[in-house]
Amino acid sequence: MADPGQHDPRVTDVGRLVVRCPDRPGIVHAISGLMAGLGANITDSQQHSSDPSGGTFTLRLEFVLARLAERRPELEQRLAALAGEWQLDWRLTEAGHRPTIAVFVSRTDHALQELIYRVRAGDLRARIACVVSNHRDLEPVARAAGIPFHHVPVTPESKADAEARALELVGDVDLVVLARYMQIVSADFCGRFPERLINIHHSFLPAFVGANPYQAAHDRGVKLIGATAHYVTPELDAGPIIEQEVARVDHRATVEDMRRVGRYVERQVLAQAVTWHVEDRVIVEGPRTIVFA
Amino acid sequence: MADPGQHDPRVTDVGRLVVRCPDRPGIVHAISGLMAGLGANITDSQQHSSDPSGGTFTLRLEFVLARLAERRPELEQRLAALAGEWQLDWRLTEAGHRPTIAVFVSRTDHALQELIYRVRAGDLRARIACVVSNHRDLEPVARAAGIPFHHVPVTPESKADAEARALELVGDVDLVVLARYMQIVSADFCGRFPERLINIHHSFLPAFVGANPYQAAHDRGVKLIGATAHYVTPELDAGPIIEQEVARVDHRATVEDMRRVGRYVERQVLAQAVTWHVEDRVIVEGPRTIVFA
Amino acid sequence: MADPGQHDPRVTDVGRLVVRCPDRPGIVHAISGLMAGLGANITDSQQHSSDPSGGTFTLRLEFVLARLAERRPELEQRLAALAGEWQLDWRLTEAGHRPTIAVFVSRTDHALQELIYRVRAGDLRARIACVVSNHRDLEPVARAAGIPFHHVPVTPESKADAEARALELVGDVDLVVLARYMQIVSADFCGRFPERLINIHHSFLPAFVGANPYQAAHDRGVKLIGATAHYVTPELDAGPIIEQEVARVDHRATVEDMRRVGRYVERQVLAQAVTWHVEDRVIVEGPRTIVFA
Amino acid sequence: MADPGQHDPRVTDVGRLVVRCPDRPGIVHAISGLMAGLGANITDSQQHSSDPSGGTFTLRLEFVLARLAERRPELEQRLAALAGEWQLDWRLTEAGHRPTIAVFVSRTDHALQELIYRVRAGDLRARIACVVSNHRDLEPVARAAGIPFHHVPVTPESKADAEARALELVGDVDLVVLARYMQIVSADFCGRFPERLINIHHSFLPAFVGANPYQAAHDRGVKLIGATAHYVTPELDAGPIIEQEVARVDHRATVEDMRRVGRYVERQVLAQAVTWHVEDRVIVEGPRTIVFA
Repeated sequence: MADPGQHDPRVTDVGRLVVRCPDRPGIVHAISGLMAGLGANITDSQQHSSDPSGGTFTLRLEFVLARLAERRPELEQRLAALAGEWQLDWRLTEAGHRPTIAVFVSRTDHALQELIYRVRAGDLRARIACVVSNHRDLEPVARAAGIPFHHVPVTPESKADAEARALELVGDVDLVVLARYMQIVSADFCGRFPERLINIHHSFLPAFVGANPYQAAHDRGVKLIGATAHYVTPELDAGPIIEQEVARVDHRATVEDMRRVGRYVERQVLAQAVTWHVEDRVIVEGPRTIVFA
Repeated sequence: MADPGQHDPRVTDVGRLVVRCPDRPGIVHAISGLMAGLGANITDSQQHSSDPSGGTFTLRLEFVLARLAERRPELEQRLAALAGEWQLDWRLTEAGHRPTIAVFVSRTDHALQELIYRVRAGDLRARIACVVSNHRDLEPVARAAGIPFHHVPVTPESKADAEARALELVGDVDLVVLARYMQIVSADFCGRFPERLINIHHSFLPAFVGANPYQAAHDRGVKLIGATAHYVTPELDAGPIIEQEVARVDHRATVEDMRRVGRYVERQVLAQAVTWHVEDRVIVEGPRTIVFA
Repeated sequence: MADPGQHDPRVTDVGRLVVRCPDRPGIVHAISGLMAGLGANITDSQQHSSDPSGGTFTLRLEFVLARLAERRPELEQRLAALAGEWQLDWRLTEAGHRPTIAVFVSRTDHALQELIYRVRAGDLRARIACVVSNHRDLEPVARAAGIPFHHVPVTPESKADAEARALELVGDVDLVVLARYMQIVSADFCGRFPERLINIHHSFLPAFVGANPYQAAHDRGVKLIGATAHYVTPELDAGPIIEQEVARVDHRATVEDMRRVGRYVERQVLAQAVTWHVEDRVIVEGPRTIVFA
Repeated sequence: MADPGQHDPRVTDVGRLVVRCPDRPGIVHAISGLMAGLGANITDSQQHSSDPSGGTFTLRLEFVLARLAERRPELEQRLAALAGEWQLDWRLTEAGHRPTIAVFVSRTDHALQELIYRVRAGDLRARIACVVSNHRDLEPVARAAGIPFHHVPVTPESKADAEARALELVGDVDLVVLARYMQIVSADFCGRFPERLINIHHSFLPAFVGANPYQAAHDRGVKLIGATAHYVTPELDAGPIIEQEVARVDHRATVEDMRRVGRYVERQVLAQAVTWHVEDRVIVEGPRTIVFA
């Protein structure tokens, strides 16, 4: 896919800095001093203290700095100097950078289509590097969008080999999105993409476990169909939540109607979560996330 | 509380008929024929077939029939005649009737206050017959609204006696509402009010079990705080769902903030569920409800 | 586009009947008698009385009738017989029928893409017969979906000719959708598609008139961005409303952000309105609609 | 009303600082340096730049400073020193302070009741100093809550005198809330409470002007009923918007149903707007607001 935003005036010389450190008075002063010293103009700033007395401080800055690409080493050097003193974790991104995404799918296309649409529309500033699937159904969708498609069949016996093969094909991407992949990935796989592996799953109140949650939700007569996008950790479906949303159904909805409603919620929640991730708006803090939306 | 709607022109001669029977072609024709024969004008009609081939048929009619109170016996006679042939369950209500409600509370007043407000505003056409609590905290709220208040302390040892005492005090009400009562009621209690006992509880995606679900939801970083109103059955929190809603929170919300948001969702969901029940809009069908909203 | 639902078991022998007439007691009995007499099983029924005393009665039935296509003439004959007596307007549709749609667009593709997606997903049971545009920008989108594309440039001078040309190209479709066409259509055009011409436009509270409503909404700091789908009548933007929705923005949203949010609301509202129309769920009643959703 | 939060641990030593000035690099550094120099710990910080190049910079800080009340003069002195250099407007509040509110009503109580409830619940940290009305209907509501009630009849002839009388009775309050007052206040009145006078009114898409907007909205068949809370300026209904929300209705809603739905939206939107105002979260910037929610 072409990159329509390569010379986008919205992103030239725009940088993003995410910082995390133990909370101590003066940290904002130290970082704002660093930015002011460089002549950077902070255009957006959001911060969070997990606990005013002794928690973790998290800060996200958007700034404009003339000739950002050229002056990046200088900025990084100053940040490194500050990092020791304040125990800073930091991440610096040029807004013009388009991270690469590998999308894993199975047979349903709603989540993948939405990601493709938002990339094309310029609303999701990323590049879908490849689509990986255990089925061939969505190959035409990927091809039509000019995205490489890798078919990696998975059977109970071949699971480990298939994952290894998928990892090899995917290579060095910035983010992996499980867009209704319907396969549980291994702890090794999770470990390859720490805080860079996003999944979407349906959610109900109450939760329904077992083979067919939509049938169970229907039998119980739930009124809301939800979806949750979260980072994947080795504990199944227990990773930090990025975004959730629900849609309303009533007693007339069949199981199939509920699935359909669920698909529209899923595509929206996943696309929102991926967009926030790509814009460095999501910071993982233990079992939860901070979302500077 | 006075009854501002006693001579409300909206309800004079307005009746509601709810019918349930095995689904067979011709049932609508039979019932509409009965109503037409009496000269009743059907102003609202909603129906549901659980399964087009051999399920349960449910119908709710609102109708205007001149001199309804006087002609009610005639209507009932005709319905009884039809009931045998079609295996009808039916319930006939005059819209002018104000059902009585007993509200069970503990220490928080948000749900009770909302019910009192909606009765006063004329939006919930019912009469709160009494408030029962295991604490004295909300006695002033009930008193200020002119509602009898019964203090029935509950201890682990006295639980059975306390329930018996509460049942005695409550007497013969049309509906019991657990408006944050915080006590598990017995199967006997549930059996006294079949499909006439409504509870409200918080809901999350995913569900969190254990002693402090708000803390667990906070730790996991949920983005939606929900509430579910349901009929109470002996299986805890598993009765037919009437209504659900959620509100949005973000990472800045403390556990206390989440509780506060939860209270506003709970009061709205409970008041809506009670209003629909009182207007004969909720029909229980096994583990789920049909809500002719 | 192929028709994946041609032999869809959900629609075989499923019919829809929409009826409108002056409200008189007995009308439901008469119609249900007709259906029962044929052996049709009514699976969904919704009705509305504009005014219990002397208004208009509207009814929508979904039914299953074995060998529907074959028995349709018989059903139509009986309806015609009833029509005289009760002054019925009626419309009978086989659910297996896929109406044809002409989509008019200008340069933005969000609404068109959503319609294409929903048709493909089987959620919108229609066939997009052609795309008409005054610009060539979306020709690739139409082509990729296998839909004929007609470029009909419009200039102030050529407006009447362009409309005539577009009408000729569109021919005899069931529905015309203005999916961000950005051109005002003539009263003649509206008259060609009575109650079969749907438009989408942005909506704000309050409304902003003039050349750049998004700029005006931004300047005033609105917190909700909305969209309205409506039937087009010769009075601009005043036709019967089918569906509306809003999304939330805050003070950080730029005019461009607001437009982007607006696009997602628009595509959803338009797709919903078109789907309801196609399923015979929208009945126009003077300046408003009844939506049996 | 008693003040349950007088010694609330959540607010002891908690301060809020709102700052506005021309945007220049270094401003965050300057203010954070001032706070760090005092030993204040910033627990929440939100900022906004109206335009990265040459707009207005707005900042809201929450901070904890040991012995805040005692050290306030020192803090103010330092802020005053900074103000000259940076052209700062600033406002400093101790979170323990409970601002006073005068509530103007007419005959409907939903908005007033909600404000009373939220104050009592501790969710709105303010004190309702008095209720003013041109009718006596809500006197019992105010009395029951222990709030002074002033009856100030208004006739077309007495309008100016009535306003003068109301202003005298109200005296020196921090905020005036028009909670369905149904009277247009004069430009003089507005001028007395600059950015401290909040109104609630219903909102539709599209807007309906004239005597009976609910009837007009009903006739047009709108699907959303909205409400807008805004600061009042001499231009009617055109002041900076603080908050908006909508609720869904369908074709079955009567005009009276729409009014009822509107009341629930209004009470929620107004209470939210007042709460944000009281917590110094709303900053007026010309015709719009910045809401640091």
